[in-house]
Amino acid sequence: MIGFLVDDATPEEIEAERATYGPIAQVLRELAQASIRTTVAPEVAAEAVAQLAAVRDLLNAEVGGASYGLKFSRQGIGRPWGNAVVGVRNPVAPPLDIVHEEDRVHSRFVLGPQYEGPPTFVHGGVASLILDQMLGEAAAARKRPGMTGTLTLRYLRPTPLGPLTAEASIDRVEGIKTFAIGHIADAEGVCVEAAGVFIVPKWARADGKGQPRFE
Amino acid sequence: MIGFLVDDATPEEIEAERATYGPIAQVLRELAQASIRTTVAPEVAAEAVAQLAAVRDLLNAEVGGASYGLKFSRQGIGRPWGNAVVGVRNPVAPPLDIVHEEDRVHSRFVLGPQYEGPPTFVHGGVASLILDQMLGEAAAARKRPGMTGTLTLRYLRPTPLGPLTAEASIDRVEGIKTFAIGHIADAEGVCVEAAGVFIVPKWARADGKGQPRFE
Repeated sequence: MIGFLVDDATPEEIEAERATYGPIAQVLRELAQASIRTTVAPEVAAEAVAQLAAVRDLLNAEVGGASYGLKFSRQGIGRPWGNAVVGVRNPVAPPLDIVHEEDRVHSRFVLGPQYEGPPTFVHGGVASLILDQMLGEAAAARKRPGMTGTLTLRYLRPTPLGPLTAEASIDRVEGIKTFAIGHIADAEGVCVEAAGVFIVPKWARADGKGQPRFE
Repeated sequence: MIGFLVDDATPEEIEAERATYGPIAQVLRELAQASIRTTVAPEVAAEAVAQLAAVRDLLNAEVGGASYGLKFSRQGIGRPWGNAVVGVRNPVAPPLDIVHEEDRVHSRFVLGPQYEGPPTFVHGGVASLILDQMLGEAAAARKRPGMTGTLTLRYLRPTPLGPLTAEASIDRVEGIKTFAIGHIADAEGVCVEAAGVFIVPKWARADGKGQPRFE
């Protein structure tokens, strides 16, 4: 079963966690770019590895669970902070700041060299990673938690690294299925389109027949 | 146009580059996990940020291009080392070591907490990121470079974090289109299936009508 943890964190404690650990992930994102671009001498690279290993050990001296999971406070504040797209504590995530508006979600973000596929362009799979999250959040806008059932990407032209926008919305709802659509665009227009079907998981259906218990 | 850089690197120089810079990305992957899991005190976290920023500046003292791109030696040795899935110099990449066999490619890999979506499970978009790369490499097996045209993912059940396998192969070829299929599996069986259409880009067609010049 896929669930989440409800804890006693207050809004102040949640902001303190973000302020304490968010900057670690942020500087690690900058280091990811440096790792790809650097041309320093071998002895400098070896020194960097030694220093990074020391910080790794420092942080690993006290750790929580094997993965972050999805924690909710009793006030209902969600912290998907380990999430590979939106996780503020996850250096793999850009992270996207996704704005919710009724049945539509949108985001502005910048993708650096660590998201490269073809030279100077965003990896096609990174575009799908981002759109899976965007469509999933759009599908969840009616308080229906959804697992991705199918996702189809249509690549209209290469997506350049740099500043981009993405948006997604609900196309229609049929029983336990929510159909969502979305796209990623640069300044010239749409680069990648996506359509997905998100399924309300069994644990979130009140009667096991498709009526979500969160409405 | 999407192209790649041919340089004069010898096999020895290429191995030296891997040995020099690969370990930086590897320790950054371990740091990504620590960033998500750590519970150290705020003053320890602040010290970690300061030390990481110093290493970032050390590496950024000498850098190459804005992104890694795809370099080829004159001996034809490819270095997609900035690639978001297989890049040995990219901490965002697991990285996958993809084995090529005729028209089939396969890989064994382990996904840690930085690839999480639903609690304890792989982000659906990370599965699509990996399958885009796998199917693209399968499609390219006949020396036909391909850009993703469409990619469809079917999620059969949640993919657990941990040890996984993936494979992909060519289903059929029609003119400039190569149809590839693949999946990700855990010890219990297939979790995600994918089907994709890869298009030979215009620059790789000898006559602009679909005959790739690389055959």
